[in-house]
Amino acid sequence: MISVAEALNIVMSNPYQTTVSAVPLLSAVGKTLAEDILADRDFPPFNRVAMDGLAFCFDEVDFQKIIIENIQFAGEAQKALQDSTKGIEVMTGASLPLGCDTVLRYEDINIQSIDDIKVASITIAKEEIKKGQNVHLQGSDRKADDVLLQKGIKISPAEIAVMATVGKSIVKVNNTPKIAIISTGDELVDIDTSPLPYQIRSSNAYMLAAALQQIGIDTSTFHLIDEEAVLYQKLQEIITSHDILLLSGGVSAGKKDYVPAILADLGLAKLFHKVAQKPGKPMWFGKTQEGKIVFALPGNPVSTFLCFCKYVLPTLKAGIKSEEVILDKDIVFKPDLSYFVPVKTYFEAGKMMATPFEGSGSADFANLTDCDGFVELPADKQVFKTGEVFGFVGFRR
Amino acid sequence: MISVAEALNIVMSNPYQTTVSAVPLLSAVGKTLAEDILADRDFPPFNRVAMDGLAFCFDEVDFQKIIIENIQFAGEAQKALQDSTKGIEVMTGASLPLGCDTVLRYEDINIQSIDDIKVASITIAKEEIKKGQNVHLQGSDRKADDVLLQKGIKISPAEIAVMATVGKSIVKVNNTPKIAIISTGDELVDIDTSPLPYQIRSSNAYMLAAALQQIGIDTSTFHLIDEEAVLYQKLQEIITSHDILLLSGGVSAGKKDYVPAILADLGLAKLFHKVAQKPGKPMWFGKTQEGKIVFALPGNPVSTFLCFCKYVLPTLKAGIKSEEVILDKDIVFKPDLSYFVPVKTYFEAGKMMATPFEGSGSADFANLTDCDGFVELPADKQVFKTGEVFGFVGFRR
Repeated sequence: MISVAEALNIVMSNPYQTTVSAVPLLSAVGKTLAEDILADRDFPPFNRVAMDGLAFCFDEVDFQKIIIENIQFAGEAQKALQDSTKGIEVMTGASLPLGCDTVLRYEDINIQSIDDIKVASITIAKEEIKKGQNVHLQGSDRKADDVLLQKGIKISPAEIAVMATVGKSIVKVNNTPKIAIISTGDELVDIDTSPLPYQIRSSNAYMLAAALQQIGIDTSTFHLIDEEAVLYQKLQEIITSHDILLLSGGVSAGKKDYVPAILADLGLAKLFHKVAQKPGKPMWFGKTQEGKIVFALPGNPVSTFLCFCKYVLPTLKAGIKSEEVILDKDIVFKPDLSYFVPVKTYFEAGKMMATPFEGSGSADFANLTDCDGFVELPADKQVFKTGEVFGFVGFRR
Repeated sequence: MISVAEALNIVMSNPYQTTVSAVPLLSAVGKTLAEDILADRDFPPFNRVAMDGLAFCFDEVDFQKIIIENIQFAGEAQKALQDSTKGIEVMTGASLPLGCDTVLRYEDINIQSIDDIKVASITIAKEEIKKGQNVHLQGSDRKADDVLLQKGIKISPAEIAVMATVGKSIVKVNNTPKIAIISTGDELVDIDTSPLPYQIRSSNAYMLAAALQQIGIDTSTFHLIDEEAVLYQKLQEIITSHDILLLSGGVSAGKKDYVPAILADLGLAKLFHKVAQKPGKPMWFGKTQEGKIVFALPGNPVSTFLCFCKYVLPTLKAGIKSEEVILDKDIVFKPDLSYFVPVKTYFEAGKMMATPFEGSGSADFANLTDCDGFVELPADKQVFKTGEVFGFVGFRR
């Protein structure tokens, strides 16, 4: 049985085969960028006024009073100072007038009109004024042709803003995969149904569809009965029209756990079956010759969700950061397995603390609604003490 | 000028007026729940087999060998043990047969057929077997009529799973508000345009639209020129058909910063104008008599984004947790303002560390692409030391 680290490594080494599309800018948020984005010109593209106030030439003016000869609004062509001892009123976002190098804020001057001539007196000490202040110099943030964003990053609103500025109304992104969610288990009925005493309503397929929807991936959902012929035929059909299959259930030691054998019959290469972890030990992972990916997850809801968050999400979503938490309660766990425990996190003096909710095991998913992630307790220890640091798999973003 | 804490308090005390809709379950993810969700029956609803293996009555069997009299699959009506000294093969998810109380995993038994009779011998010591093991007792997680989810929580995939299980195919959620994003600033041109040397392309509207889209809110976007009559007329129109207006630009001390005066002319109550913070000092917040909310944010992109993340997002999205980070570099900032600095965070021994990127100020939004949030340095200090703990406003979820 392989370790959690080995399993994750195998999953990450076998990504689904993505294609690239050019999409409108706003459709790119949350997706993975498929091209480098360059600065089309300097950032800022001109010497930009950073405060509303008065622009002048620091070395030329009389700091007692400055006659105002003009006004420069944002969005106007750059004006020029005619008399180097005078000043020009300027607005934030405007081009700094030619001949000026420094800007004083309106808060730091008084403007009076004397015989129709506007004159500014300065209300702060000269020593407080620095040559060049309140000017955002052309190219000081980025130079034209600098790489602003690299292919492969996840696109958040900040990257959308940068791409807007360089005029990328259409941007190349990795297409999201076509994913089929397939639940098995004859005890499951649909949510619209009143279950008989020994039945339960399906929940995994909704949970997975919701989690994928949150990262902008639409899914198709199927429920298959536990009959070998049906499973074989349906899986064969479904796999032709999807890039990734997410199965839940049917991978354990039960008499009707046909999934691993049928995936083998369908010609898939098994990359692993069983991981040294609790919950989720029976997880199966493999791929077709064409590179389609199948995750067959155990059917207990907590197992399904843990395996999804730990293994499936990182393959779909670039830039997931590794996080750590500090246990606020001792846990003892003897089996030679990595132990993932639902936790509720909170901050205490800059530390991310985690309160474990062991609950009643991998079917106790009502428990998850009190939690925001799993702490990952390694297989090679048995006692996990308050104050020790462990990995964290978050599920509320 | 009010403090950041006072401003946030005023914003949170003046929420937009939400309405409630009943939506299909999967449309509810990311939204705020508008009804309590009760357990329709016990969780689990029957004594549920938690492992594939053999069920029996702990006090009755001979632990040397157990004759197998039947098999109980998941999804079948509950069977009953006929002979209390015998056992029944059981599958995960099945109803525990009547008369049984304990389950041994297949891994812990050997099954042989002797004269067509299946007999299990146990491969572990009797001391390792606990009465009741591997049975998930009816009602052990939740009882029928327990409140599983409370009105007002944010719905994540875990809550979707719980609602699926209790048959909530339609669920009541708060409607997302109708939001108009309105940029002003005559230096701005659309992203499809080649800007003149003194113009820049609009980026704030795209950034805000992308951020709202990520939390499932569609927006309408407008760009208005800096003319009083136009602003008055257009804002009057836009406000009638939206719940929230997000303006960027036009709120500072510039000669064309007409926004606060026009909002007053339109009859809005100003709840605050100017916050003791950098960036974002000129922020304006108010509402109409009908309870429509207007955020007028400063137009520099970093200011816009900080104000959006700090003040706007918490009103739209339930359950944002307060987070803290530890500075990994000293910062000195003298003005009597809260100072929000873009930071890149990472984990170190369970601590969330933050590297500040002061950059070149509130127009330097290329900087944000290296960061994942802002550290909030309080106004009453001037020196912020490595290792000190401060609040964190994250923007990559």
